[in-house]
Amino acid sequence: MATNICVTGATGLIGSALLDDLASRDFNVTAVARTLPLQSEQNFLASNGDKFSWLQGDLNSYSDCLDIVNQQEVIFHLAQKNSPLTSDLDWPSDALLNIIPTLNLIKAIKESGNVPHLIYPSSGGAVYGSVKNKMLISEANICFPQNSYGIQKLTAENYLRLAAQRGILRATVLRISNVYGWLLSPSRKQGFIGTAINQIKSCKPIRLFGNPDNVRDYVYKDDVTKALLLSITSDQDFEIFNIGTGVGTSVNQLIQIIEKILNRKVAIYRDDSIDGENLTDWCVLDASKAKKLLNWEPDVSIVSGVKKMIENCL
Amino acid sequence: MATNICVTGATGLIGSALLDDLASRDFNVTAVARTLPLQSEQNFLASNGDKFSWLQGDLNSYSDCLDIVNQQEVIFHLAQKNSPLTSDLDWPSDALLNIIPTLNLIKAIKESGNVPHLIYPSSGGAVYGSVKNKMLISEANICFPQNSYGIQKLTAENYLRLAAQRGILRATVLRISNVYGWLLSPSRKQGFIGTAINQIKSCKPIRLFGNPDNVRDYVYKDDVTKALLLSITSDQDFEIFNIGTGVGTSVNQLIQIIEKILNRKVAIYRDDSIDGENLTDWCVLDASKAKKLLNWEPDVSIVSGVKKMIENCL
Repeated sequence: MATNICVTGATGLIGSALLDDLASRDFNVTAVARTLPLQSEQNFLASNGDKFSWLQGDLNSYSDCLDIVNQQEVIFHLAQKNSPLTSDLDWPSDALLNIIPTLNLIKAIKESGNVPHLIYPSSGGAVYGSVKNKMLISEANICFPQNSYGIQKLTAENYLRLAAQRGILRATVLRISNVYGWLLSPSRKQGFIGTAINQIKSCKPIRLFGNPDNVRDYVYKDDVTKALLLSITSDQDFEIFNIGTGVGTSVNQLIQIIEKILNRKVAIYRDDSIDGENLTDWCVLDASKAKKLLNWEPDVSIVSGVKKMIENCL
Repeated sequence: MATNICVTGATGLIGSALLDDLASRDFNVTAVARTLPLQSEQNFLASNGDKFSWLQGDLNSYSDCLDIVNQQEVIFHLAQKNSPLTSDLDWPSDALLNIIPTLNLIKAIKESGNVPHLIYPSSGGAVYGSVKNKMLISEANICFPQNSYGIQKLTAENYLRLAAQRGILRATVLRISNVYGWLLSPSRKQGFIGTAINQIKSCKPIRLFGNPDNVRDYVYKDDVTKALLLSITSDQDFEIFNIGTGVGTSVNQLIQIIEKILNRKVAIYRDDSIDGENLTDWCVLDASKAKKLLNWEPDVSIVSGVKKMIENCL
């Protein structure tokens, strides 16, 4: 029997990338979204025929959650509202939109009596907070999240750990560093590489905010999909894995990489309307645990990833 | 001008004890509760005349929060729903009843533009989780809460830290160990000493659940009130203090202490209807930071505290 897999947040960036991959494998896939994509997009995604179905559901509805978890063996819980910056605009709303849906889902799993494997993308960038000495960050680091996004992710991790301890589910948490690989709208205050290349495509100057010396660990989307898929094989009750490259790149260095690939200077403007002062200055992950236990390592370097994007998009 | 102090959760056990103390001092005190006490009780508590007032308010209402924080310089945020055991019956509801009200309060403080000092009782018993080697637990220990109550407290701490970093408020967090000093109804699944002495008073056998060798750090209510009052003097932007005695006492030892004071054996029954298996086996706090920075230390030993209760109650 093919494994029953469900994906919440299936219309999101990571959700769509994951579905593309899952649909070509021998799984029974249920893709969950609050708003289903247009029929044409559904068909495009549903290349796996009757082994792939869409389910309209809102995790704020407990009864929807009961439908969603029904008979599922693996649940990719990707549904997420807000980015690190937007999460801080309204904390009560951020909690209502993130932790309550996750707790509804766990409650429904408990009521179902099955013990599925829940795979959860946490945030390598947001849960740890600032780090002294610019060391690689391991999963054992103490977490001091610097935004509501990070606090919500950490809270979800704690509930998943507790649910696993109590035999309600098994859980694999991926603390993923900065994912890139999609063109992003500049209205999105997250994802420098995606917005920058999108702006170059539109012949607009690249928007900068925050400190351009801030260093992040950029991981290509295909490597993240690979980590999500490998997570299915984890047989632990509860485990947290960093998913990052171990290589730090500053925004200034990214601009240099882009300019080198394009073989020209790019125009830049500073957007001081965006408050970037709360962004941490350093976040580079030690992903040796994922290599050891999940057999995961990144295939795409920052230079080849940015090159792929530019070649595909421009 | 006397300091404006408000107390949420003012009708709770710790709230009432704190009000008794505050009302005799030179503060303007606003006591907040969802349901105001009867007029006779209000009068009893309001011995401070026009410097003491009650305010009906529900922290789930953002507009009530705006009223509550208005002009306050010190906010004791004591409002809390659920005990460690009851918090696990329904996680979404526990989050809705605890973290959302706290976030509404912080949001209202931000909107008010004042920067009050918020004093928050966290939980020394619930945020840390199990500890290897039965060491004294310091504030720097990594936290692995073992119930929803502890996760909610830790989440609130994280938001208070963030709010303090951003200049929205100053916050003092007290991780208080097991408080005792009140007679408690056996229907309450929290507070062994209070329920045990209450049952002795009613000539009923003492109810036991969980492992009677589990060790806790019992701190007398007057010592907790003292810690709350001393917190007013803290001038830090954000600080976490353990409030405990550093002395561990098992449930079995408590029974011995009670029997020695009464000079007779007491009847005991095990209540296996209560699931105590998730209770940690050890929690004793190192409160040296509170001694150093708040000048707090406990006055009442476990033997003299239990003796006080028995003398006052039986």
